[in-house]
Amino acid sequence: MPIGAQPWPTTFFLDGTRGELADPVAIEDPLEIQLAFDDAPATQLAVTLRTPGHDRELAAGLLYAEGIVDSAADIAALDEAAAGEAPGSRVVARLTDRRNGSRAIAARPFLSTAACGLCGKASVDAVFASGFPALPPGPCLALPLLLDLPRRMAPAQELFAQTGGIHAAALFTADGELLLSREDVGRHNAVDKVVGALLLAGRLPAGETILAVSGRIGFEIVQKALRAGVPVLAAVGAPSTLALRLAARAGMTVVGFVRPGRCNVYSGVERIAD
Amino acid sequence: MPIGAQPWPTTFFLDGTRGELADPVAIEDPLEIQLAFDDAPATQLAVTLRTPGHDRELAAGLLYAEGIVDSAADIAALDEAAAGEAPGSRVVARLTDRRNGSRAIAARPFLSTAACGLCGKASVDAVFASGFPALPPGPCLALPLLLDLPRRMAPAQELFAQTGGIHAAALFTADGELLLSREDVGRHNAVDKVVGALLLAGRLPAGETILAVSGRIGFEIVQKALRAGVPVLAAVGAPSTLALRLAARAGMTVVGFVRPGRCNVYSGVERIAD
Repeated sequence: MPIGAQPWPTTFFLDGTRGELADPVAIEDPLEIQLAFDDAPATQLAVTLRTPGHDRELAAGLLYAEGIVDSAADIAALDEAAAGEAPGSRVVARLTDRRNGSRAIAARPFLSTAACGLCGKASVDAVFASGFPALPPGPCLALPLLLDLPRRMAPAQELFAQTGGIHAAALFTADGELLLSREDVGRHNAVDKVVGALLLAGRLPAGETILAVSGRIGFEIVQKALRAGVPVLAAVGAPSTLALRLAARAGMTVVGFVRPGRCNVYSGVERIAD
Repeated sequence: MPIGAQPWPTTFFLDGTRGELADPVAIEDPLEIQLAFDDAPATQLAVTLRTPGHDRELAAGLLYAEGIVDSAADIAALDEAAAGEAPGSRVVARLTDRRNGSRAIAARPFLSTAACGLCGKASVDAVFASGFPALPPGPCLALPLLLDLPRRMAPAQELFAQTGGIHAAALFTADGELLLSREDVGRHNAVDKVVGALLLAGRLPAGETILAVSGRIGFEIVQKALRAGVPVLAAVGAPSTLALRLAARAGMTVVGFVRPGRCNVYSGVERIAD
């Protein structure tokens, strides 16, 4: 059983028969993400229900998406547990001196929700006001390759194959080479893990890449991709209106319902070569 | 086009052809939920990205799930906009005198995440400490009816039929009669809308009912069902470990991967008659 899944005693009913199995179930467990400045005590930034694994990347990706850090140099340390604690339930992000101004940033509610107290337009405006890397005009993506992305993701979806209940986010080159893939019970967490890995490796903005996701494309998924400088977002599922309004304004290519032989391109169709 | 969807200019590629269509896309838009006591100014409780419609039910359901109210009598008013505001972006929940003690409750972070700062066990313990209605021993649910629930939900999934990108939650009697159904881009919102409607109608706890959901079963879905007193939770998707730990401890029946001819029962199989 891979890390991230756990067998659960289950009764199955299948075409009139009844039986017992140890069904692999995706692990969901809370992770607390704390911020620390200098020698002051750490303060809670967020608690997320996530699938354990790549927790430091998840924390880094969330800090980046929310604009609390702009590069790996802004993070002095990512400690997975405080002194005397069991590992696996907490990441403390200790920021470097030059980010001490983040104290104020961290005190405000999250960008992804705080901006949204007024209306969709205010939410889109807030993302623009917060800043993000300019998206490159490319890549020019061949349609057959685009339609093949779900198949190319599949080998990296080890937990999905086991559990049938977990999301994936995968970053591809314009040639369809898989650069990086992460799975999580939370759609947003899977994207945060990918972006966090890029951040910690000093590989942001992401350049002429494609982010493929297994689920639907909501506002926050576009926001995270935009902040990472990813110009093309492709999903097996459907987009939402607010996600499309943000993507269209930013010039991001958004493709939904990607499956053999078909897809819908909702914005930025100039990056697709059919 | 139904309320909750909006046409979006889209380029489709289908089996080698290319065309344009106005694709119906699920609306996602922020809703701010505020709490007010006596004549004091309202304070922000949450902002959720939701599909507009049934906003008062959504707010009521969220307040109930979080233990801020216990019955409709605890809510003096649910105002959809403050004076001078455009409607549709805010619900102000004005609580009755007897719930002024909620001031303290509302000040703490959300149960569904706050409890989770430590580990899964602490999260489960916190739900038990917060209290919920005892689940009834029934219903005794016939297996063919259980497997038929997705088909019985479908006629009420009007937005899903249009957009292919929206979640549903539906409450059924033990005889398979559909009592109530709601759709939303957010899985949790759809459940909050159902529970909020029951709360406002004075129909909680829900009794010998089945809550069917279109997506996956995470911890917070079980938590919301448990608080509403729903003994059986059935999903087209998969459960998570933390969801199952909570359900098993509470004696809730949880069924996943419900589809023609098959399902997996993860807890409370005694309520299923095959």
